[in-house]
Amino acid sequence: MAVKTGKYTYLLENTPSVLSFGSVGSKKESEGPLGQYFDVINPDSTFGESSWEKAESKMVQISVSQALSKGNFEADQIDMAFAGDLLNQCIGSVYGLRDLGIPFVGLYGACSTMAESLALAALFVDTAIAKKALAVTSSHFCSAERQFRFPLEYGGQRPPTAQWTVTGSGACVVGESGAAPYIRAVTIGCIEDLGIKDANNMGAAMAPAAAKTITRYLADTHTRPEDYDMILTGDLGQVGSALLEQLLEQEKIHLQGRHQDCGLLIYDRQQQDVHAGGSGCGCAASVLCSFILPKIRKGTLGDVLFVATGALMSPTSSMQGESIPGIAHLVHLSSSRRRKGVE
Amino acid sequence: MAVKTGKYTYLLENTPSVLSFGSVGSKKESEGPLGQYFDVINPDSTFGESSWEKAESKMVQISVSQALSKGNFEADQIDMAFAGDLLNQCIGSVYGLRDLGIPFVGLYGACSTMAESLALAALFVDTAIAKKALAVTSSHFCSAERQFRFPLEYGGQRPPTAQWTVTGSGACVVGESGAAPYIRAVTIGCIEDLGIKDANNMGAAMAPAAAKTITRYLADTHTRPEDYDMILTGDLGQVGSALLEQLLEQEKIHLQGRHQDCGLLIYDRQQQDVHAGGSGCGCAASVLCSFILPKIRKGTLGDVLFVATGALMSPTSSMQGESIPGIAHLVHLSSSRRRKGVE
Repeated sequence: MAVKTGKYTYLLENTPSVLSFGSVGSKKESEGPLGQYFDVINPDSTFGESSWEKAESKMVQISVSQALSKGNFEADQIDMAFAGDLLNQCIGSVYGLRDLGIPFVGLYGACSTMAESLALAALFVDTAIAKKALAVTSSHFCSAERQFRFPLEYGGQRPPTAQWTVTGSGACVVGESGAAPYIRAVTIGCIEDLGIKDANNMGAAMAPAAAKTITRYLADTHTRPEDYDMILTGDLGQVGSALLEQLLEQEKIHLQGRHQDCGLLIYDRQQQDVHAGGSGCGCAASVLCSFILPKIRKGTLGDVLFVATGALMSPTSSMQGESIPGIAHLVHLSSSRRRKGVE
Repeated sequence: MAVKTGKYTYLLENTPSVLSFGSVGSKKESEGPLGQYFDVINPDSTFGESSWEKAESKMVQISVSQALSKGNFEADQIDMAFAGDLLNQCIGSVYGLRDLGIPFVGLYGACSTMAESLALAALFVDTAIAKKALAVTSSHFCSAERQFRFPLEYGGQRPPTAQWTVTGSGACVVGESGAAPYIRAVTIGCIEDLGIKDANNMGAAMAPAAAKTITRYLADTHTRPEDYDMILTGDLGQVGSALLEQLLEQEKIHLQGRHQDCGLLIYDRQQQDVHAGGSGCGCAASVLCSFILPKIRKGTLGDVLFVATGALMSPTSSMQGESIPGIAHLVHLSSSRRRKGVE
């Protein structure tokens, strides 16, 4: 069972595993440093579909089908699917999962969705509600751009703080197993809002939520950053990553080179003109499922705190002058079922 | 712990209770048959805010604050909030809950959200992940109308199959207790899509999902409609309700007058010009939290299957020619902890 420790964190005593996982990306992702690690790359970002939104659903189908087939699972072995995305009414997930007949728990966590879905899947497996649960999310540069910003044809200028929405999806099947990667603990985040209103600076809006969730997790578990090999945020990008480290320094938490950000890993900012880095639900999801989980499985990465962050605004709330609330959920992934130390 | 019975249903062995609940509505809701049962009615549908979206968030604040205060709870006693709504990026819930500091699990289940959030809250309490969990959702006629259909000022004609989005919110605090209403079982629905494309006929799009979930629940629990006092759908309205009964007849399941629909209960269709009935996340939520839960608490209603249904489309998917997928989640509410019969 899941044992609450402190106020916000659950230790998963049955340590569910990520049994299998799949990732998909497109041309820009293939040209980045992680391109070789993706299961599927389709350089045609339409994925053969007639709209960007349908292309995004197609990516969900691909990442889920990769996760299922790599684990030799059929859809009817999955007790529950946790999924959501950035599109209005989460249509990326809905149409992507429509044909599978898996009980569906629709989520909205913006770019925190990979951590939110993985945390819920892990809690459900740990408490034996589900034997196997699916966690999946996606984003598409073109569907996000026209929904949140401008039509692609407009060719709007992007400020240096802007990030580039990843065209990609990642899916995990969580279940009981004796093999790594294990899910050892989760922290469900609270909504944090320090008043940032610049919709071209999501990193700044989300950094306080990441700082809060990391601080709470470390306090709840009586651990320090040194107890982990990597503290991996979702898509803070360059601006948000710097702010996160500053905010944690104020709390006397020193990440000391252990911090990585999926938004900074996925693209080469010198070569790829992505400004402050990658973003979108598919950023954290595809980096986790292509580059990180295989290393934890092999044991080349030991303990990773995966902290995906979301900006919970809409274009409507921004136009109405509202600030941008952020949220961050944390999942402790590990190559070992139990580790030295206090946890 | 939650014990899976059949393929889709969980029996909640620790039978969590709905400890307290709150409801809010506006002018049209107050003029309907259930007006007197709401905790809070504000005939000014702006709720003192400068936009319809902010008014919707205000309703979330009101229903949650009612649910908390009626149970003598403080926000920091709540381990987890499950919430979502119809607005793009679920901003009704996000801005409504922003200031409470409760760990937040954002959901998207369209008009099924009250059942989805209540089911998750019940599963979390039953498995002791949470001691107390909040389930809340909302809708607002004016924010929904301009997002999903036309600007209010346009004065578009509404076909007879159209429904009227309820301006309202309902919130439940779920926890351990020795008192009714108990949550005895939940069924998580699958996405069902029979190809309906008429965005003015949501009842028809959602009825197949309701039929499927009810059929599965009855099969999983080896029970019949006669074992329940009420089978309460969320917002099928007149068209969807008739279709549901037809679809169930085909499965040889006869509801025999036990079926009620929140969308038909909340307004007087003869007097209030709402066409096929009420709809929206706030429909099922506010009817449940004003009219139904008090009756279960008193014992004047024994066993109720609460089946909220959602239409998981967006205006974009409809414009792109996609059909409308539906989903229905089921929560078995009861005035007694254990009942006669096979379950």
